[in-house]
Amino acid sequence: MRASTAVQLARRIGAGLESAEQAVRGCLDAIEAGDAALRAFAALDPAVAMEAARAVDRSPAKGPLAGVAVAVKDIIDTGQYETSYGSPIYRGHRPALDAACVTLLRGAGAVVLGKTVTAEFATFAPGPTRNPHAHGHTPGGSSSGSAAAVAAGMAPLALGTQTAGSVIRPASFCGVVGYKPSARRVPRSGVKVISDTLDEVGGFAASTDDVALLASVLALQPDWAALAERGRMQPPPGLGWTLTSRGGQAEPAMRQAVERAAQLARAGGARAEPVAWPERFDDLFEAHRTIQLAETARALAPEYAYRRAQLSAQLASAIEEALRLPPARYPQALQTARSCAADIDSLFGSAGVLIAPSAPGEAPATLASTGDPLFNRPWQLLGCPVVSLPFGRGARGLPIGVSVVARPGQDALLIAAAAWLEQCWGQRAAA
Amino acid sequence: MRASTAVQLARRIGAGLESAEQAVRGCLDAIEAGDAALRAFAALDPAVAMEAARAVDRSPAKGPLAGVAVAVKDIIDTGQYETSYGSPIYRGHRPALDAACVTLLRGAGAVVLGKTVTAEFATFAPGPTRNPHAHGHTPGGSSSGSAAAVAAGMAPLALGTQTAGSVIRPASFCGVVGYKPSARRVPRSGVKVISDTLDEVGGFAASTDDVALLASVLALQPDWAALAERGRMQPPPGLGWTLTSRGGQAEPAMRQAVERAAQLARAGGARAEPVAWPERFDDLFEAHRTIQLAETARALAPEYAYRRAQLSAQLASAIEEALRLPPARYPQALQTARSCAADIDSLFGSAGVLIAPSAPGEAPATLASTGDPLFNRPWQLLGCPVVSLPFGRGARGLPIGVSVVARPGQDALLIAAAAWLEQCWGQRAAA
Repeated sequence: MRASTAVQLARRIGAGLESAEQAVRGCLDAIEAGDAALRAFAALDPAVAMEAARAVDRSPAKGPLAGVAVAVKDIIDTGQYETSYGSPIYRGHRPALDAACVTLLRGAGAVVLGKTVTAEFATFAPGPTRNPHAHGHTPGGSSSGSAAAVAAGMAPLALGTQTAGSVIRPASFCGVVGYKPSARRVPRSGVKVISDTLDEVGGFAASTDDVALLASVLALQPDWAALAERGRMQPPPGLGWTLTSRGGQAEPAMRQAVERAAQLARAGGARAEPVAWPERFDDLFEAHRTIQLAETARALAPEYAYRRAQLSAQLASAIEEALRLPPARYPQALQTARSCAADIDSLFGSAGVLIAPSAPGEAPATLASTGDPLFNRPWQLLGCPVVSLPFGRGARGLPIGVSVVARPGQDALLIAAAAWLEQCWGQRAAA
Repeated sequence: MRASTAVQLARRIGAGLESAEQAVRGCLDAIEAGDAALRAFAALDPAVAMEAARAVDRSPAKGPLAGVAVAVKDIIDTGQYETSYGSPIYRGHRPALDAACVTLLRGAGAVVLGKTVTAEFATFAPGPTRNPHAHGHTPGGSSSGSAAAVAAGMAPLALGTQTAGSVIRPASFCGVVGYKPSARRVPRSGVKVISDTLDEVGGFAASTDDVALLASVLALQPDWAALAERGRMQPPPGLGWTLTSRGGQAEPAMRQAVERAAQLARAGGARAEPVAWPERFDDLFEAHRTIQLAETARALAPEYAYRRAQLSAQLASAIEEALRLPPARYPQALQTARSCAADIDSLFGSAGVLIAPSAPGEAPATLASTGDPLFNRPWQLLGCPVVSLPFGRGARGLPIGVSVVARPGQDALLIAAAAWLEQCWGQRAAA
């Protein structure tokens, strides 16, 4: 079902062995065949995508993502596609220009395939997308369409955004690789930012090689493209694992997955010790939720003031909950974040990279919720980069993902370590 | 020349002693009389402003800013006024909705008076605005029009934004009070963010009372409105002063102003000791500049890719300089920022509030540059809240401002301390 990886594809197109037109046509065919059921896409214009592909074929200079189709979450501006942020308020909205992240991808030769379904303003109310592994289950959210499209082989790469667990959780639920960069590592200009402290642009792919390539373009670090290849050559120097302080809220399959992941890493030659969750870091869970709520109410103040009737009941009531918070609560939460971030060594200790749950477990059997971002909250608030890697299946046979996490700013170390772990876990799982 | 303060005005309008219509008409008259020479405004629509004023007069519920006219920097979205970000690329652009900060002000009863001139995308290339104290001198930037409008008595309040010194420097050059909040304390949604790490929404007013009122609305902290009043009752507990590590680049008048400001504070009963600038904090100057450049190039990637001919030569060449930076330079600068922020106590020591230069000196005698933000860079990168207070005049008779600075998150302490200092300096200067 899955098309070639982005790395392979870009190499073949760069070498003239395949055309971008052919590659993009393949993606559009997969969408045509499957998206009536999957509902991953919010806006498509095959003529625009094909013309962009032909422009890549005509251009003598082939970029590192030459001809690679990218699906773009509909919270991200695109000049050539309607961008409605998952809300009827912006139906028909056509931004003047692409977002910065889209510009960077197009500059590297990527072709925008279309816009993918986002939860309303990347918050709570789900769109229509289904989980490719079981249509009655959520794909996760808020980057629902992007995760589903990559999992269903409709696009080799997709952009998402994350406020709590909006990249990592759907990656886990859909069985693909997800990457959420360090805070402020990828430009957010042209993204409808809902939580200014928390929101980040990230992406989905089939492998860490593809994540490395995507990250190298999004973060303007050309040498990152080779990170996965180099990472596989030796075990990460220091590895730890944790269920956070909320392990009791994970399904048994998830707890076992994290422990087994650490075990396999040890068997592969890495040191992988449990790390203790510092007591005061437990405050990060509630602080994250407070910041998310308070900033959502602030960012959507105009929509709430002028277009309230067009907000979902779920979002309107979250905004109202935020407006009832005692005024000191939000600055206190920011202070908690600052203070834990300044003391991050007390969590990581001698480890450079940690293994942790990507979600409480498998995708819930509902389309009315996108699942619980509980386990993603502390990393997001600390600004840590995270890669979620598929790690087997849960009790109901659906995918489970394990998070690999590094200190803020350590994206290169993270991607290299994730590549080593992907190889280690893949070989062992096969053995 | 100056109209009533915002606090007095809102009280009179709230009590029915004056109408919002009258107040806004007064501002429009001042603009009509003076703006052909001053060039503070980029977009005006007197009919829209008057209708908003009449709506306030008709409404039985009077908010804390009832009928107070606010001039809005044209880097901030407004649904009722053209918003062109100081660039021909966005000429005629009309956002769907107001920015969050504008929504908050309007929700409190404020009336948007019009849009004020910003440097191109709030970066380097100045608009046409002149300094009200000397028309051949820059008003500072990038919030040029907002500072000039308040200084000229055309608006009691104005919104600005700051990436380096875009609020504090024009406040200093124009002789008004400027306020730049802690990082992420005022919502940026609906602002064209150019530097994601650095940009903040701030404002201009004639007094710390007005700043307290403005801040209370922008930060959703109703009790802040009384901060200035309370602050005047006793000296701030710990006060320090510094010329940073770059004091040699300040004009003698500015160096003397900071020392004299500390001296007056001591005479008024505060402890005001010099603080030592930690050696490694000197790296903040260059790190700030790197982050500003790199993020400007990232945020404006779409404009640079698709509309390059419409960028100023100055901005295009700054973007090109950024694109030539070694890829590791930007993440290193972010790391410098994180590391100094985590160690901010080594700078503040036992002081809660510091006094420092707002600019190198008086407004330069040019309209081709908005002056040097050197002295604002470290505070901005640390995320510190800053108030600039007018403090006498320089050698050429133009205003000089002194910065009052607190640790990130300590906006309330800052505003209270600034009110005490304003009173202390005002009395002594008069004595």
